[in-house]
Amino acid sequence: VQQRLDLLTLGVRDLQASRRFYVEGLGWEPTLDLPEIVFIQVNHGLLLGLFPAKELEADVGERPEVSDAAARFTLAHNVGSQSEVDEALERVEPSGGSIVKPAQPAAFGGYHAYVADPDGFRWEIAYNPGWRVSPDGRVSIVPVQPRS
Amino acid sequence: VQQRLDLLTLGVRDLQASRRFYVEGLGWEPTLDLPEIVFIQVNHGLLLGLFPAKELEADVGERPEVSDAAARFTLAHNVGSQSEVDEALERVEPSGGSIVKPAQPAAFGGYHAYVADPDGFRWEIAYNPGWRVSPDGRVSIVPVQPRS
Repeated sequence: VQQRLDLLTLGVRDLQASRRFYVEGLGWEPTLDLPEIVFIQVNHGLLLGLFPAKELEADVGERPEVSDAAARFTLAHNVGSQSEVDEALERVEPSGGSIVKPAQPAAFGGYHAYVADPDGFRWEIAYNPGWRVSPDGRVSIVPVQPRS
Repeated sequence: VQQRLDLLTLGVRDLQASRRFYVEGLGWEPTLDLPEIVFIQVNHGLLLGLFPAKELEADVGERPEVSDAAARFTLAHNVGSQSEVDEALERVEPSGGSIVKPAQPAAFGGYHAYVADPDGFRWEIAYNPGWRVSPDGRVSIVPVQPRS
């Protein structure tokens, strides 16, 4: 498992208020500014996602065994293929983590799973064929046809 | 305010369990592995910090107006000087955020403040004179004499 964070997603109550703070207030330029989600580049190959909390919860799925506290945001680690998602998952439980959402096709058109670290912090392990990082570190997200 | 995340710190219940998960389990190599804190490089110029939750709370200071949920981790944005910390703070309240800990000398030897975004997510705005990023993105932290 490469040691790399690709995406940090905050589950927000009011996306307009968050946009006002980060985009209008701090002056940060979005990579993608949609009515349902905002992505902002915050380092080389790294995006900050602003996503309504209810939708983030729905994407992660049920996790009755942990408090809500650690589920208010997710960290994402991208890998290069579907089988690498499966391989990464094999390391989780022996290391003291747990699998929150088993590996499956993802709404964004790739393949993903959610795991919890020992504190319940959520990591998405994702194969996202539309994720591109240019040599200067700029991320772009190319639409991918979701699989039926 | 440059759009850049430099450090993501998770407040953990048991640092040994977290070390077991990230360092021994996932095989991630620490940049700094101390009994009281672990830093792991997770992208160009980006560290993941594992820090006992109680000490992270103490560093952030009191925040009675928000739930614990958003305070379980902090994001950090480094700036180049003490006056840039002060300048960044001026943008926060007009944008719908709030100041959690006013700008002040920091335990690490620099100068910092904590602010909350509209959901209460904590950002540390820091001038850390010991923070170095090499051209290939590797972060090192040089000890700085705390000011008395």
